[in-house]
Order: sequence, then structure tokens, then C-alpha cells
Amino acid sequence: MNQTTVFKIGGNVIDSPAALTRFLTAFSTLRGDKVLVHGGGKIATQIAEKLNVPTTMVEGRRITDKPMLDVVTMVYGGLINKQIVAQLQVLGVNAIGLTGADAGLVKAQKRPVAAIDYGFVGDIQEVDSGRLQSFTNQGLVPVLAPLSFDPSLGTLLNTNADTMAQALAVDLIRHNEVTLVYCFEKKGVLSNPDDDDSVISQLTPAVYAAHKAAGSINKGMIPKLDNAFAALDAGVKRVIICHADDIAAALNGAAGTVIS
Amino acid sequence: MNQTTVFKIGGNVIDSPAALTRFLTAFSTLRGDKVLVHGGGKIATQIAEKLNVPTTMVEGRRITDKPMLDVVTMVYGGLINKQIVAQLQVLGVNAIGLTGADAGLVKAQKRPVAAIDYGFVGDIQEVDSGRLQSFTNQGLVPVLAPLSFDPSLGTLLNTNADTMAQALAVDLIRHNEVTLVYCFEKKGVLSNPDDDDSVISQLTPAVYAAHKAAGSINKGMIPKLDNAFAALDAGVKRVIICHADDIAAALNGAAGTVIS
Repeated sequence: MNQTTVFKIGGNVIDSPAALTRFLTAFSTLRGDKVLVHGGGKIATQIAEKLNVPTTMVEGRRITDKPMLDVVTMVYGGLINKQIVAQLQVLGVNAIGLTGADAGLVKAQKRPVAAIDYGFVGDIQEVDSGRLQSFTNQGLVPVLAPLSFDPSLGTLLNTNADTMAQALAVDLIRHNEVTLVYCFEKKGVLSNPDDDDSVISQLTPAVYAAHKAAGSINKGMIPKLDNAFAALDAGVKRVIICHADDIAAALNGAAGTVIS
Repeated sequence: MNQTTVFKIGGNVIDSPAALTRFLTAFSTLRGDKVLVHGGGKIATQIAEKLNVPTTMVEGRRITDKPMLDVVTMVYGGLINKQIVAQLQVLGVNAIGLTGADAGLVKAQKRPVAAIDYGFVGDIQEVDSGRLQSFTNQGLVPVLAPLSFDPSLGTLLNTNADTMAQALAVDLIRHNEVTLVYCFEKKGVLSNPDDDDSVISQLTPAVYAAHKAAGSINKGMIPKLDNAFAALDAGVKRVIICHADDIAAALNGAAGTVIS
């Protein structure tokens, strides 16, 4: 069976041109089918400020009203996505930049209004991994912005990039053996958030439960890890959490945290 | 031989949500392979103003410095492109929004600095119409933003949408019989710019030369018409210039100007 690796990079990589170039250079040398999902970064907030679009955060989450949806469509779907594609093209990777609306790749439902109205935020309903696989079969490397598409409303929706990467990985198991790699600014999942070298190299459900109970894992990691275990339960072969500089080593088991 | 129709819509359609919806609705009903190239519109200038990026025009052409390149990448490649894709998806068209960097579709060279330094503006060198054709063979409808890609500089380049549509049409003749349709806000090429009904229904090189000599055709039309005749010389079957509301009629010879 072929291998597909789905990578997710977040704001910490995108906000640093040097870190982004290092990541993309390493990414360009990896063999096999690959898909890249990128997050947002600070630039959306900076551009929103300049455009006088107020940024509203509730419980650490951005509320996406219509003006903010336009900003993230521009910044995630245009600026960041196309700059990554251009860099990858120079590195010899035949990248193609896409949102969930393109080719109907990632269909979502606007999140129902409950205690909080998140606005134009999508909960993913359906991924067309057959199309993604046909792109990779044609030698293309899909680069996805964190924007899904609601076919009933006809609108793009802001979508968490971790969740998007997980949804793509889970659907791609229909076609290939899938590894999901979350890249961030730490060396892996830390058993002590104050010690950058306290990487947990292997995280099983039992070890995770113990760390959760002891409160030793950083709270910000919990949604990412819940995503990771959900991906494994759904059939993804491996989930790796590692520093964006370490993807080659992490894929060889020599860096980062492997969730299994 | 199959038919491919390449449509170009400009700012006048993009700036009016109602006109854009009318065009996309008509576009969605047309059979056969189709490709859409869109221009910019006023929104790039408006957003540039809000971001304090000065717009410099020389001889009616926008100078694209790096901050302006970022603006057009956001607005053309992100906002406008993805909003068109989303609308088409709702209309049942499996649109895929692309720039010239995506899949290496449209390679260009940064325009050499002569009397005027246009900045990050591209002169198209190479179109991968084989890839475009493979997309249309897969049932996709490519929607292209007017951004090409310079592989030696690794940058996107602002590109005239009329020229981009022409370059795509000319390269697509390797695969299909191609019609190129320029949509704009007039009913066609007018023999009297003050009379909106003075549409020249058929424009041959001889008729064009006569009108040019008499100065009866609006000067703004000359580059578009030169593009049109160049496309015909290069093997495009038909070029049509028509109102964006009239594409179905124009393709049946009942509206607009046919260049032949």
C-alpha cells in the first residue's frame, strides 16, 4: 500500500519566514504522497486591524463575522497559501493551493449557534479524498488553506487547521496508509511544559490518560492530542507531533512524539 | 474535436455582485469544457488604500511593488477567486480556483525594466494547457486569477487578465477547438463609442484596419482587439467580445462581436 503523509503547520511556522523556508525545504525532500495543511498566523489579525475589522476572541477562539471571513479568505486562501505554493514550486514540488471550496474538497456546515455564535466557522462534514488522491497520483502536492465550504449557504467557512488536517488524514485511509504530522514550535509533547527537552517519545492512550490526570501536559495540547487519538481510532496509522524543523527525523522515529 | 471555451470577465462584472451572479448563472448552464479567467476590479485599490499601500498608475497601468503584489495576491488569488469558486459550486459547477503558480500552470518572466519599471508584473512564457485539459477532463472548471509565476524569482506576478485568457486559449488549441470570449460592460465592439447599439457584429482584419484608420473604435479597445487577432492568428477558432449578460446569445451568434 502506498503512503500518504499529511502535514499541518501553524502560525508559529508561518509567522517566521526563516522557519517556513526551513520547513518547506525539508518537506520538499520527502518522498511519497504528501499533503500540506497550513494555519493562519498573526498576519490575518494584523491585516484585519489595518482594515479596521475588529478581532473578537471568545475563549481563545476567533469569532468570524463576515468582514473577518473576507480577511481570512484573503490572507489564508490568497496570501499565505500562494506564497507557500510559490516557494514549493521553486523547490521542485508541484504544489497546488486549494481551499475546501475548490473542487468541492472539504464540505462543512456552519457551526450552529449555541452558547457562543462563532460566526462563519465550519464543522467538517465530508472530504473528497478521492479527488485529493487523484491529484497526488498526478504528481501534485495539495496545499490546503484552513477554509471549508458550506454548499447549502454557498460560503467559505473558517476552519481549525488541526481539525482539517485530521479530517483529510482520516478520509485518505480509503486510498493509502496515512501518517499525520502536526508540526509546531516544541520538540514534541512535553511531560513538563517548562522543560523543552522533556519530550514524551511515545504516547499511548494509557500514558496520555495518566498525564492528563496528573495535569502534566500543557492544556493547549489537549485538543491537538484528542484530535490525534481520534485520527488513530479512525484508522490513521501514525500521528506524530514534532518541531517543524524535525520532520525528517520524526518520520524516522528519531524526534518528536509518536501517538499510537 | 472537443470544444473548450475560455471566458474572461473584468472589473466591471466583479465589482457588481448582481452582474457577477448573472454571469456565473449563465456560465453554469453552458455545456462543454470551460475555463474562466477573472480580472481584478476596484476592491484591490480600495483594500490597498485601507492598508496604506499607495496605488501608482503609469499610463493607465498599475505599478506593482511588493506591498501591492501582496494586496493583489490576497484580493485576486484569495477573495475574488474563492468567492467565484464558492458561487459556482452552489450553481453545480465543480470549480477549482487557481493562480499561475498552482501546478505550475502559467509561467512568466518579470517584465524587464525599460522606460517604466512596472514592478512585479509578468510577461507569460509558458502555459501548461495539458494540466488544464486534464482538469477539465476530470469534470473540473478552472477559475484563474490574473497572477502568473516566475520560477526563477520564485514569485507570483501581476498579469493582465485579457492577456492571460488569450495565452490559455492559444495553448489549449493543442487539445481542443477553442473559443475565447471577452466579457465586458458593452454589447460588443462599437463603431461609435457614443452609441451603445452600434455593435460591429463581425470584425475582420480589414474592417478592423478601416475602423482603426478612421479612429472610430474606442482607444481602450485596441489592446483587447490586438489580443483577439493575435489569438486567431495563433489558431484559436473564434474570439467573441460581448456583454457579460449575453454569453449564451453571443456563443450562438446572436449578440456581441465575433472576431474572425
